[in-house]
Amino acid sequence: MSERLVVIGGDATGMAAASQARRLKGAGELEIVVFERGHFASYSACGIPYWVGGAVRERDDLIARTPEEHRERDIDLRFGHQVLELDPAGHRVLVRDDGGTESWTGYDKLVIATGARPVRPPLPGIDAPGVHGVQTLDDGQELIDTLTGQESGAAVVIGAGYIGVEMAEALIQRGYRVTMLHRGAEPMSTLDPDMGALVRKAMDGMGITVVGDAEVTAIRTGADGRVRAVGTADGEYPADVVVLGLGVRPATELAAAAGLPLGEEGGLLTDLAMRVRGHTDIWAGGDCVEVLDLVSGRLRHIALGTHANKHGQIIGTGVGGGYATFPGVVGTAVSKVCALEVARTGLREADATAAGLQFVSVTIESTSRAGYYPDATPMTVKMLAERRTGRLLGTQIVGQEGAGKRVDIAAVALTARMTVEQMTTLDLGYAPPYSPVWDPVLVAARKAVAAVRAAGW
Amino acid sequence: MSERLVVIGGDATGMAAASQARRLKGAGELEIVVFERGHFASYSACGIPYWVGGAVRERDDLIARTPEEHRERDIDLRFGHQVLELDPAGHRVLVRDDGGTESWTGYDKLVIATGARPVRPPLPGIDAPGVHGVQTLDDGQELIDTLTGQESGAAVVIGAGYIGVEMAEALIQRGYRVTMLHRGAEPMSTLDPDMGALVRKAMDGMGITVVGDAEVTAIRTGADGRVRAVGTADGEYPADVVVLGLGVRPATELAAAAGLPLGEEGGLLTDLAMRVRGHTDIWAGGDCVEVLDLVSGRLRHIALGTHANKHGQIIGTGVGGGYATFPGVVGTAVSKVCALEVARTGLREADATAAGLQFVSVTIESTSRAGYYPDATPMTVKMLAERRTGRLLGTQIVGQEGAGKRVDIAAVALTARMTVEQMTTLDLGYAPPYSPVWDPVLVAARKAVAAVRAAGW
Repeated sequence: MSERLVVIGGDATGMAAASQARRLKGAGELEIVVFERGHFASYSACGIPYWVGGAVRERDDLIARTPEEHRERDIDLRFGHQVLELDPAGHRVLVRDDGGTESWTGYDKLVIATGARPVRPPLPGIDAPGVHGVQTLDDGQELIDTLTGQESGAAVVIGAGYIGVEMAEALIQRGYRVTMLHRGAEPMSTLDPDMGALVRKAMDGMGITVVGDAEVTAIRTGADGRVRAVGTADGEYPADVVVLGLGVRPATELAAAAGLPLGEEGGLLTDLAMRVRGHTDIWAGGDCVEVLDLVSGRLRHIALGTHANKHGQIIGTGVGGGYATFPGVVGTAVSKVCALEVARTGLREADATAAGLQFVSVTIESTSRAGYYPDATPMTVKMLAERRTGRLLGTQIVGQEGAGKRVDIAAVALTARMTVEQMTTLDLGYAPPYSPVWDPVLVAARKAVAAVRAAGW
Repeated sequence: MSERLVVIGGDATGMAAASQARRLKGAGELEIVVFERGHFASYSACGIPYWVGGAVRERDDLIARTPEEHRERDIDLRFGHQVLELDPAGHRVLVRDDGGTESWTGYDKLVIATGARPVRPPLPGIDAPGVHGVQTLDDGQELIDTLTGQESGAAVVIGAGYIGVEMAEALIQRGYRVTMLHRGAEPMSTLDPDMGALVRKAMDGMGITVVGDAEVTAIRTGADGRVRAVGTADGEYPADVVVLGLGVRPATELAAAAGLPLGEEGGLLTDLAMRVRGHTDIWAGGDCVEVLDLVSGRLRHIALGTHANKHGQIIGTGVGGGYATFPGVVGTAVSKVCALEVARTGLREADATAAGLQFVSVTIESTSRAGYYPDATPMTVKMLAERRTGRLLGTQIVGQEGAGKRVDIAAVALTARMTVEQMTTLDLGYAPPYSPVWDPVLVAARKAVAAVRAAGW
């Protein structure tokens, strides 16, 4: 007898889960229905800033697999279908279809992949034309329509996280004068402030005005109703377009209403096989769940396409009768702002303190290539290590070409719970075009060893 | 009472050891004498191809620390001093100074950092003008003198290892028509032949003629005694200049004559603190020792500046009364041939077989960036995993920008003895300019997991 898998949400996690389940079970064994509220599936939201900036030409370039490809594999992908209610006890979901008709659909297995929703503070004027989020392809298209429909002028980006800095780059490439307003002392609060300061300085050099400690109070519109400026407690910034990059929150209202377990950051709680805790027939993954931070031991909400894809793969394996688990994350992220590469993994100083850890922290300057090799660029590496044990706790890198992906060295070392002393003898690739003879990560590890020793027992 | 440290060889290992020992012990406690046969110290031999090719302008750019800097730190660096004999029982070395005078110098502690010597087969004509090795700065200067003293014409590189391919690039940049002759079926025998074939194809595309299975029989000279051609069993290749890139052997004649222990590949044998086995007052490191391959469990001779520098650091720490060890290598190397990046770590198929391991091997094609991001380039990743356990055994990567240093992910995973299944959930840096949502290394790990499963118990 055929079972039915219902998937809520047709982006990375949902479609990866559906595809993997289909690989393991044919259509005769498993019916797969995906309800997607919007009109796109399997797309790279991470690519939206590059589409807006013009590096990616076509919206469809961001779509990894077309709806037709999914349907050819007997995945019944239904756009414009919004799930209104979950009934775990009844094994069914209430769906409103694109014609507005509501009906219940039963499931044997359910995957919740509802993703995240951008933070949208209730500011006066926030819904004015010219104010844009950049979460979905529809958002991206609307922003591009705004940009192409007017002369480039002043742009304000609110928020200085990954999306904020990537959108600042995109708007610079569109010819806008860009101001980035953010709450903290320094941009990129995923870094320690001293490393965030390097990003600010680099953005200054790119002509982006970065305003910290900014409290946005209102978005002012003109007589035509369109955005004109962004008001803060300290003054007003002219704006022909505003982009919101204030982060996201798990979209778990449906799950919450159904009584499914949520964590402190609002994400669904799952077991290691990505099953919702206490529910053997419901899986969840991607931007709507919390994941274990392997370094701090805490649950965190981290919205990243790479986790979403892994979750989908693991969920699909479980749904298909196989076995796979997601052990957790170490908190790796890498971002680009024009020529600047910014990366981090593990804990910031504040995270380490909050986790009850005592630590040493070192920062070194090195270069991307042997110093004598052409186009060697400066690179700053900050490294945190636990006091006494010397275990690596985190690494942050700010530099140019070749800086960002170097964080992977530390990400793997964190996963393996290496000490900074163990890291000093890592056998990393060396050739003058790619690294000084001591890779910058090794230089940082050596300095961290000395700091651990100096901190004493 | 002051002790005397004698260091034989003033390049990476020797000077790093001397510098680190000096950091730990002042001149009042430790006298440091370095005997260097040549006239340069602390230089990057790895940079010579880029100096010859023109990317690095000045010879002195390759010198990391000047003799004056060493001498200011009370390191008595003596150029033109050749050590002729070691007398471990007498704690002394026989030295011929730059004036030709021979005398014995006593030591309390001795560091042997005699490096490696290029393989120079006894071919007819091999000593002719125009035939060059590229091991030392003097070699590099002589080659540059040859190149600048004639019109660019035909060049033959003998050998297709790292030096061979890097010199092929350098000669192309100098405007030469380059032929590379090598013994194996494919260039870069540090890779499996299927990956070496990718290098050959790329070099073909750069206009380098790569001739495999070539047995060089003679170097033919003209009436002026200069090189004219390279003869092989299958024909002759015109050559206005010849570069030898046939690898190196440990320069351990002195050590052998003194009865110090050598391994199967001719390198000195040390303990984990880099002390020569059986000799508490003698350390050795760099290109003249054998190191433990952590993956195969065998001792190997690997001449690489990055190991040499680490050894020097560890030796200097031990000499200075501290404690540090070198656990071994996993066999990482990365190389550049024009836009091509070639990297490897761990075992090739032949190495794994020789080590008694059974394994699966997979190869995948991916890209350096998200497929939709501009300038995404193809990347081939080959991965070996142990049968049953799924432990990672080796990774080889051939691609373009961003390919080479990706091997570090596998290098750290090898060090941590991770399985390919553990690797599939590694939290690697992801952003569209730097990686597809599944990093190529993760794609390879996923395929390797499937292969391990398919290979059965």
